Amino acid sequence: MVKARKYIYHSHFDGLPKETDLKLVEEELPPLQDGEFLTEAVFLSVDPYMRSRASGVDLGSTYIGSQVAKVIESRNPKHPKGEHLVGRFGWRSHTICDSKSDFWVVPDLEDLPLSYSLGVLGMPGNTAYFGFLEICQPKPGQTVVVTGAGGAVGSIVCQIARIKGCTVIAIAGSEEKIKWLSNDLKFEHVLSYKDDDFGAKLEQVTPEGVDCYFDNVGGEVTSVVLTRMNEFGRIAVCGAVSGYNNDFSVKASPIQYLMIRKQLRMEGFNVYRWQALWFEGIAQNKKWLEEGKLQYRETLTEGFANMVQAFINMLSGRNVGKAVVKA
Amino acid sequence: MVKARKYIYHSHFDGLPKETDLKLVEEELPPLQDGEFLTEAVFLSVDPYMRSRASGVDLGSTYIGSQVAKVIESRNPKHPKGEHLVGRFGWRSHTICDSKSDFWVVPDLEDLPLSYSLGVLGMPGNTAYFGFLEICQPKPGQTVVVTGAGGAVGSIVCQIARIKGCTVIAIAGSEEKIKWLSNDLKFEHVLSYKDDDFGAKLEQVTPEGVDCYFDNVGGEVTSVVLTRMNEFGRIAVCGAVSGYNNDFSVKASPIQYLMIRKQLRMEGFNVYRWQALWFEGIAQNKKWLEEGKLQYRETLTEGFANMVQAFINMLSGRNVGKAVVKA
Repeated sequence: MVKARKYIYHSHFDGLPKETDLKLVEEELPPLQDGEFLTEAVFLSVDPYMRSRASGVDLGSTYIGSQVAKVIESRNPKHPKGEHLVGRFGWRSHTICDSKSDFWVVPDLEDLPLSYSLGVLGMPGNTAYFGFLEICQPKPGQTVVVTGAGGAVGSIVCQIARIKGCTVIAIAGSEEKIKWLSNDLKFEHVLSYKDDDFGAKLEQVTPEGVDCYFDNVGGEVTSVVLTRMNEFGRIAVCGAVSGYNNDFSVKASPIQYLMIRKQLRMEGFNVYRWQALWFEGIAQNKKWLEEGKLQYRETLTEGFANMVQAFINMLSGRNVGKAVVKA
Repeated sequence: MVKARKYIYHSHFDGLPKETDLKLVEEELPPLQDGEFLTEAVFLSVDPYMRSRASGVDLGSTYIGSQVAKVIESRNPKHPKGEHLVGRFGWRSHTICDSKSDFWVVPDLEDLPLSYSLGVLGMPGNTAYFGFLEICQPKPGQTVVVTGAGGAVGSIVCQIARIKGCTVIAIAGSEEKIKWLSNDLKFEHVLSYKDDDFGAKLEQVTPEGVDCYFDNVGGEVTSVVLTRMNEFGRIAVCGAVSGYNNDFSVKASPIQYLMIRKQLRMEGFNVYRWQALWFEGIAQNKKWLEEGKLQYRETLTEGFANMVQAFINMLSGRNVGKAVVKA
């Protein structure tokens, strides 16, 4: 008899989540049936979408999320003991799966860490790869602005933009993120959106305007970036984390004038529209990692029991790069 | 010696334009040089963009706008006396042109009125034709919402959507526009955005959501329509007339959450990006007119001296269909 630990959505988030909003409980799992296999979480992901999609989660149900899991017992020959997969199983330590469960098998990562499957070689990496290239359609020499540049997706977008020969303006908030982007990733133009002079500085580093804007953040920062867009600019709306802790209400008018004057294209997207190309994205990012063109950083929290704190830290911007929990 | 009358931008618009903001003055035109020709305005256009682009017009200069003009004297064999053209000459009665001036020659309209070159067979018609088909990519059976449906562009978009086999939701404000759309153009779903129940009624007539949104208006109406969009919906941002008399400031955040969740594409556009296909658009709209598939209505104001009033009326929604001034 296996006891799974899991977090259930206990009380509705109000602003930034609190420790008590998610409750750690135990669940006894039944014995495996034919075709089933038991997985154990190895790494769990905390991502901004977990906050923005809270309204779709029923109280009392297991909280939403992905994990790298290892098959520890199997009655399914296609998924033998020892196999690693990435599953959208929620915040739980053990899961009984069958072939129809929501997962993908981790491809051969050679020497790269397994946790990368939750980041640069998984959903965030593919979000950066497809979202930026397909929606922003960057051309060499063009200017690309990225918000959330110190995060899991943004830091990869910045580097792909550089690989593609673009001028990159990386925007972040925390000092540590800014240092990492400047000193380690060697970006020349790294701005803090908290800077009083943010608008003037953005203008200074974009003398020829902005062609592509990959937005993870939204809000006031986006309002300022939009004023710098060139005609036929492309805006990939990947996230809007600045508003995830607030009540979203839809008021469209103020951006429309600029969208018309500059003939902008703004597109919201979800990486799973490129599901059919999933492993192509992972293979390309892996190649760039191996060539040293892509650098990757994680903020690791130890212990399943610390998941909520890791989640709160990430939403508060205290991570650098991808936030991951080691079970 | 020919005396031209023209309107100069006299004082900056503050909210809805006032009669005194534009000043009618006279100008003596010099004799024609070789290669030049003199045109006289026959019909002049008043359009919403004339309000939104005011900030780009210098005080003291001729106000921006298009006209159908007739060549009344010519020293240019390519543009003989009697030829009609559509010129972006501003609000003026007489203009000296040469081959490099900003105009296009009116194609053979057979029995159709010349003024149509300012509407269904000109810029607004092409805005509807290309803007809707290229940006909204409508498919038969899909649901299309159009704001400003009783105006020059919107009324054509609604009809092209019907020609393409879509379900059309036409949104307008004035009683007269709503009557025209319902009784004459025979649209089944015509909503007033002034209705207290607007949101509920929109929901009622869009049981399968909205696939394409052609927006001329922006503001609160757009906020409501966005909540009805289906995943992968396309939003053509053609105009934002609800805000043209206000101070536009860019605040992007509130729409982003929906754009992501629904994977929406929103694109602002200006019809002149399809300049190379100009006469293809006119030819198609003309064919539809002749086949009775497209109906067209004008609100005609008599007299160059009444241009400002015609402009104010149009901005206040007192036109039905295309607003035109007969010189």
